[in-house]
Amino acid sequence: MTALEDRTVQPTITTGPISGSHKEYRDIGDGIKVPFRRVELSNGEHVDLYDTSGPYTDTSATIDVHNGLPRIRESWALEPINGAVTQLAYAKAGIVTNEMRFVAARENMDPEFVRSEVAIGRAVIPVNRNHPESEPAIIGKRFLVKVNANIGNSAVSSSIEDEVDKMVWATRWGADTIMDLSTGKRIHETREWIMRNSPVPVGTVPIYQALEKVNGDPAKLDWSVYRDTVIEQCEQGVDYMTVHAGVLLRYVPLTAKRVTGIVSRGGSIMAAWCLAHHKESFLYTNFEELCDILRAYDVTFSLGDGLRPGSIADANDEAQFAELRTLGELTHIARAKDVQVMIEGPGHVPMHKIIENVKLEEEWCGEAPFYTLGPLATDIAPAYDHITSAIGAAQIGWAGTAMLCYVTPKEHLGLPNRDDVKTGVITYKIAAHSADLAKGHPGAQEWDDALSKARFEFRWVDQFNLSLDPDTARSYHDETLPAEPAKTAHFCSMCGPKFCSMKITQDVRRYAEEHNLSTVDAIEAGMTEMSQEFAQQGNKVYLPVEDLLAGSKTKTVD
Amino acid sequence: MTALEDRTVQPTITTGPISGSHKEYRDIGDGIKVPFRRVELSNGEHVDLYDTSGPYTDTSATIDVHNGLPRIRESWALEPINGAVTQLAYAKAGIVTNEMRFVAARENMDPEFVRSEVAIGRAVIPVNRNHPESEPAIIGKRFLVKVNANIGNSAVSSSIEDEVDKMVWATRWGADTIMDLSTGKRIHETREWIMRNSPVPVGTVPIYQALEKVNGDPAKLDWSVYRDTVIEQCEQGVDYMTVHAGVLLRYVPLTAKRVTGIVSRGGSIMAAWCLAHHKESFLYTNFEELCDILRAYDVTFSLGDGLRPGSIADANDEAQFAELRTLGELTHIARAKDVQVMIEGPGHVPMHKIIENVKLEEEWCGEAPFYTLGPLATDIAPAYDHITSAIGAAQIGWAGTAMLCYVTPKEHLGLPNRDDVKTGVITYKIAAHSADLAKGHPGAQEWDDALSKARFEFRWVDQFNLSLDPDTARSYHDETLPAEPAKTAHFCSMCGPKFCSMKITQDVRRYAEEHNLSTVDAIEAGMTEMSQEFAQQGNKVYLPVEDLLAGSKTKTVD
Repeated sequence: MTALEDRTVQPTITTGPISGSHKEYRDIGDGIKVPFRRVELSNGEHVDLYDTSGPYTDTSATIDVHNGLPRIRESWALEPINGAVTQLAYAKAGIVTNEMRFVAARENMDPEFVRSEVAIGRAVIPVNRNHPESEPAIIGKRFLVKVNANIGNSAVSSSIEDEVDKMVWATRWGADTIMDLSTGKRIHETREWIMRNSPVPVGTVPIYQALEKVNGDPAKLDWSVYRDTVIEQCEQGVDYMTVHAGVLLRYVPLTAKRVTGIVSRGGSIMAAWCLAHHKESFLYTNFEELCDILRAYDVTFSLGDGLRPGSIADANDEAQFAELRTLGELTHIARAKDVQVMIEGPGHVPMHKIIENVKLEEEWCGEAPFYTLGPLATDIAPAYDHITSAIGAAQIGWAGTAMLCYVTPKEHLGLPNRDDVKTGVITYKIAAHSADLAKGHPGAQEWDDALSKARFEFRWVDQFNLSLDPDTARSYHDETLPAEPAKTAHFCSMCGPKFCSMKITQDVRRYAEEHNLSTVDAIEAGMTEMSQEFAQQGNKVYLPVEDLLAGSKTKTVD
Repeated sequence: MTALEDRTVQPTITTGPISGSHKEYRDIGDGIKVPFRRVELSNGEHVDLYDTSGPYTDTSATIDVHNGLPRIRESWALEPINGAVTQLAYAKAGIVTNEMRFVAARENMDPEFVRSEVAIGRAVIPVNRNHPESEPAIIGKRFLVKVNANIGNSAVSSSIEDEVDKMVWATRWGADTIMDLSTGKRIHETREWIMRNSPVPVGTVPIYQALEKVNGDPAKLDWSVYRDTVIEQCEQGVDYMTVHAGVLLRYVPLTAKRVTGIVSRGGSIMAAWCLAHHKESFLYTNFEELCDILRAYDVTFSLGDGLRPGSIADANDEAQFAELRTLGELTHIARAKDVQVMIEGPGHVPMHKIIENVKLEEEWCGEAPFYTLGPLATDIAPAYDHITSAIGAAQIGWAGTAMLCYVTPKEHLGLPNRDDVKTGVITYKIAAHSADLAKGHPGAQEWDDALSKARFEFRWVDQFNLSLDPDTARSYHDETLPAEPAKTAHFCSMCGPKFCSMKITQDVRRYAEEHNLSTVDAIEAGMTEMSQEFAQQGNKVYLPVEDLLAGSKTKTVD
């Protein structure tokens, strides 16, 4: 029986479109359909947004988690080139793959530009051949900044059902990739469920499962158990793997005087191994063989920062940068073997030390896509570390980081639940989009402009539907003004009708239009009648406040 | 009957210390006591944090909202200098006031340094003589970045009770000043309640009340009704006032082609007035007289940015910067009359356009303290605009902004409730502290270090108590591990015991200490016995996971 045939596992997942939008596909030939989330506006226009949610939001799709998603990329496989089936190998050979065409259409970029960025290693497309269910995405500084959501159980908490639900939920709200970081029981089965049902690339940290196989004792790890675990996960279809091959024996003492020592799980495991055996890391000494394995599936390296800082005090220290330099060395080895590479980054970094991280990573690692965890800009706010880290993430994204690993409100406190996952993803979509805007990414601002126009024109429903989280936006509005007419009212409860600045500005413009004046001319002419007309209009064109409040939970209106 | 004698008004407020801390006063002589929030740690140390919460968190204080707070500064009043009673006048004359000594103690600065910063106008201490209940705070780029919380009713929502509660609640969580932006009914009474019970400086926008006095018609406003309103509010004790005196007639057409026009309430009111009368703004033409009024009370100007951008598309445009240049002109007029001045700033600004705002403000307004609303780094996330704006706020704070006006999750959607106020304040404390760190503010990092040390040493309760919001941090932890022993456990539900990187690092260090080796030496010696010892210890020193989960709501542990 395969894992998915186990009928005692019954995940409950969320399907159906995000409120106010529907799935739309763009046909790019050869039967390839690229998905978008289309928001239809009340003025007849529409906005197409990048869509990570897969078939789950397609009302015409049949979803059965026990069968898994359709294997859309099965027929895309090309013949190997020099033993490699990687996007990097094809890109170097001048071949534009279907994966490249797919991501080009998603990002409104030229496929040849995609190929050239992949060829020089500045972008990666993590697509294990054994994960044909996934819709390809590109990770690189010249493309939209991506967001990863970590899920996975721990020895203390969660189940397969919970984690499948979180995976679907995270991609619904915009997670571009998922990492399954399970460290509890049933690691293989949990991952199988996630692989077969994930519409986005999936990453893992194989050392976690390897450690489980040796009953949790780091000293008992060796290359053989690790290699077998990697092959097992490659076979399952994992698209990228975190490998802490830069934690060298001689770097471990550099962490001794830190405030928070080693805070990476993988880093601490490898440090314990190196110390116990007083040997160089088996990940480092066997790195070339590891490359050969990953190349055969097109699994992308995510070279892990096992010595990343875990506090403001430890940011940008010798241990961290020593490891980064080694990751650069490994990057060049992997690329020579046609294996795609990303580099993981911190962690906890105060704002003034963020840029240096990107600068050194680009210099030492040949501009391999940078993939950072936050960073948190301060340590003082456990329970709000999605926010402390979004501050850092937005800035490091602007500086050139290609993918941001989300942080949830539970960071440092416990395993995230479903609500935490959503909060983390939305927060990081904000950081990523803010970075896209600051980088001047083509088309990024159209989304902001569409929403702001809807706001200014009091198209409330359009404003909700264009937002990252339409459900919450609408519910916040409806707390005080739930009645349907309030959805077209020219004010909200924040300022009330008389003090709505946008209403006043609109009144000026409407007056100008009614009098056939260009807006600027109208204003410059100095409309002395205006105040009288306003007074006559009063609020008569709108419903009285009392009607709008019908059904409101607001107790006191004085 | 005064407003507070109205026994039909019965505010319910929150008193008592923040969990895990207590009020401590530092005596600086002359009967002046400077408050701190002291967090006692389990290792015998303590950390003193800046405290904005006033007597409400002092268990020895008697609180009666119908009497108001003690008038602690009543006896501090000095004789006027050249008709002025302002901190600026005294500072220029070389006098170190009690207010300066108080803020110096709060910030661990030299009183003479405080005086010199006030004297050149790079910092302000908003302290209306008629608000002797307030504890002075300083706003300037060389000091801790401050946070303002907006409260106040609208025509659609809220009551006096709600707003008094929100004021106390906001200062509890760290609001350095409060703005009462009421635009609904009973504006004068609401403000009286807030003034008499507020331990922090209070700001207002007098044009709102003036507009109410002319029944909401901007065209009916004039200098006389505005002046009377300002005097009324000066008499009540308002510490700083937003005055949109830079919205000039000739600037209004510059907003005509904007995506979101004029989004400042005050700005739109003044624009409507200028257009209706085709005259220059009465705030601009009567500015010198306004200075004379404010000088008599020591009310600080907060020169409003009535033409601030309301969307990413409108950031840093001609209208915005034209007004800013005029605010610079007005700054110099006010300073010449010994009136303290702050400058308000945007709004909605993408990250790459933030620095220019600070640069121009400092150049044109003689480094007057900048006081910005966010700015929001993107428009696409209504319901999360505390986060979109914290990203911008942290950066603009780092660049030199002295005070950040919070944004709540309800921004653009409705009037914030109590929970929104707390979320907004905590989020902005994060942004402000991140900026303090990035500026290298003396002592700022001690807070982070204390918390990170507690985290690394698994002093969970200390970690909670040192956080910005101990209650939420603890409740998130306790969702999965509520049992008391989990408060000293060397792991949490995030990774479980085997994968806790900090536990592994600690084990290495403890081993070294037990063997009388310096940590670095121990590690470099390569402790081959380590793995065996770890295996023997197992998890025996800790309680089994099952015991820790007792009482947990976690349903599934597989």
